[in-house]
Amino acid sequence: MLTVTPYYENDIIRTIAADFPRHPLQVNKLLEADAEIIKWKQLSNDYLVVKTDSIAEEISSGLYQDPYLLGWMSVTAPISDVAAVGGVPFGILLSVVLDEKYSSDWLQSFKHGIKDACEEYKVYVLGGDTNFSAHCIITCTALATAPATMMRSGMNAGDLLFTTGMAGAGSAFAYHVFFDRTVPVEYQPLARISESKSVLKYASSCIDTSDGLFPALAVLAEVNDKGFQLTVPSQELLKSDVARISSHSGVPGWMMLAGPHGDYELLFTIPQHREDAFIQECKMDGWHPIRIGEVTRNAELSFT
Amino acid sequence: MLTVTPYYENDIIRTIAADFPRHPLQVNKLLEADAEIIKWKQLSNDYLVVKTDSIAEEISSGLYQDPYLLGWMSVTAPISDVAAVGGVPFGILLSVVLDEKYSSDWLQSFKHGIKDACEEYKVYVLGGDTNFSAHCIITCTALATAPATMMRSGMNAGDLLFTTGMAGAGSAFAYHVFFDRTVPVEYQPLARISESKSVLKYASSCIDTSDGLFPALAVLAEVNDKGFQLTVPSQELLKSDVARISSHSGVPGWMMLAGPHGDYELLFTIPQHREDAFIQECKMDGWHPIRIGEVTRNAELSFT
Repeated sequence: MLTVTPYYENDIIRTIAADFPRHPLQVNKLLEADAEIIKWKQLSNDYLVVKTDSIAEEISSGLYQDPYLLGWMSVTAPISDVAAVGGVPFGILLSVVLDEKYSSDWLQSFKHGIKDACEEYKVYVLGGDTNFSAHCIITCTALATAPATMMRSGMNAGDLLFTTGMAGAGSAFAYHVFFDRTVPVEYQPLARISESKSVLKYASSCIDTSDGLFPALAVLAEVNDKGFQLTVPSQELLKSDVARISSHSGVPGWMMLAGPHGDYELLFTIPQHREDAFIQECKMDGWHPIRIGEVTRNAELSFT
Repeated sequence: MLTVTPYYENDIIRTIAADFPRHPLQVNKLLEADAEIIKWKQLSNDYLVVKTDSIAEEISSGLYQDPYLLGWMSVTAPISDVAAVGGVPFGILLSVVLDEKYSSDWLQSFKHGIKDACEEYKVYVLGGDTNFSAHCIITCTALATAPATMMRSGMNAGDLLFTTGMAGAGSAFAYHVFFDRTVPVEYQPLARISESKSVLKYASSCIDTSDGLFPALAVLAEVNDKGFQLTVPSQELLKSDVARISSHSGVPGWMMLAGPHGDYELLFTIPQHREDAFIQECKMDGWHPIRIGEVTRNAELSFT
C-alpha cells in the first residue's frame, strides 16, 4: 500500500486476477468492492471451514524456485488442511508479496500454477492483496463448507491407522534441489479433497502429512495422548521414486519420512469395527486406502 | 514450515494464541484440527464477507516500528474493508511471518495490539500460521457476515458525498515518523464497524480511506465513471492535529489528503432524497456524518 499508488496496485491486481473465473455466487466484480461478498444462502452447510497458510521459508531457502510449483503449492497447502477436516473448498484469498525483481514471465508461470490448482480443486480466487518486499511471500486462505467434520483429536487405542498414499516425496524433492540435481524428482502433490469425503464418514481422527509422515504421527500422538505401532516396514512406506532416491543417495528411508517438507496425504484412524465398510466405500469411490499401523495406549511410536 | 519443526512451531503458535479467547461457535480447540471449524448455522446471514490484507511496506519502510501499532493495524485494515461493504465481522485468521531477531517483548506488545483491536471490533482470532523470513510481514484475513451489502459501485450524479471523519491522519503520522519526530502525532485509527450499520441502509456506494482521501475518491470516480465536486475547502477536511502539522511543517493541506497512508474512515454517497432520513438515523445511533461534496456527471475532481 505504501510505495504503490492505488492505480498501480490495481494494475497489478488486474494482471494477476484477470484470467481467473469468478465464483458464480460472488456478488462483486474485480475491484468493485472493498471486500469480497459471497451469496451464502445457496452455499450453506452446517460448518464454515477456514485455513490460512504462508509460504516463506520454502521460497527464501530456494526450495520452490519454479514459480509454477510455487503457485500450485500456495493453493494446495491450505486446501490439504481443509481436506483433513472434511471440508469442501469453494474459494481462496491470495496475498502476494512480490520482491522487486519479479519478471512478467515469472508472474505468468506463478498464475498458471494457481489456476491449474484452482481448477483441480474446483475453487475460485475470491480476492487478494498485493504488496512489495525484499522477499517474496505468498499467503493463501482457503474457504470451505462442511456437512460434518473430523479433527486431529478423537482416536482410541486399537483404531487402525491409514493413509491415502505413500510418503517421502517432499524430502526426496528437497534432496534433489539442495544436494543432487542429477537425480530427477517429480513433485506436485495433490490435496486429497476427493478421498476426504469417504474418510470423513469413518475416521476417528485425521491430519495431513504436509510436514512429513513422522511429524504428523507425532502431532496425532500428542493431541490424543496415544501412540502408534507401524505394521509396515519404513522402507515400504516410501513412494516408489523416493525409495529409488534413498538407495541412490544413501539417505536412510526413515529419514525421508522425518519432514519437515511433506506429502500432503491424509493420515487418519478408523475404528476396527468400521474397517470393512470403509474399505468397501473407498473401493466404490475408486481409491484404495493404505493400512500402515494401529493406535496404541502409550504415547510411543514403534516401527521396524 | 521448513526450518521450524512442528513442535517448535506449535510452541510459537501457543505463545501467540494462548491469551486469545475462542469464538463460542468455533468447534476445534487450539491445534486440535488442521483447519478452523465454525458452527455456521447459528451465525448465518445472507452474505459471507471476506478480506485479506498484508502489512509489508509499512514495516520495511519503518513506518510501523511500534509492535502494538502493528498488531492494531493488522486487524484494523481488513476490518475497515469489511465495514465498507456493510459486513459484521466475527473472526480473523493471522499469518505472522517473523524475522529472526524478534524479541519476547516485541511479541507481547504485538499481541497486545491484536488483542485490543479484537476486543474493540468484537472479533475472535480463529487461527493462523507462523513462518520466519528476513523481513516481518503480517497478513490478516477478516471474516464477516452481512444481511445486505454496499459496494464501490452504484452512485449517481447528484448523490451527496459523506465521510465518517476528517482526513490526513495517516499522512501526518508518516510525516512525524520520517521527517520530524519532535512533532507528536497520535495515530491509532478505528475501523468504522458501528457507523457502517446505518451507512449500509442508505448508501449508493462506499469505500474506506485506507489509502488516503483523494485516492479513495479516485477509485470511486473510476469504478462509477463519475466525478466529485467537493464543497468543503481542503484545509477544512483535515483532522485538527493534521492541520496543526500542516501549518508547522509547511506541507500543504491537500498533500495530507493524497495518501498513500490513510485514515480508515468510510467515504460514501447518499441519494439526495434520503439525506434527511439518513442524518436522523445517524443521530439516533449517536454519530454525525460529515457532508463534503456531491457526485458529478464527468469523471473529474474539483475542489477549492
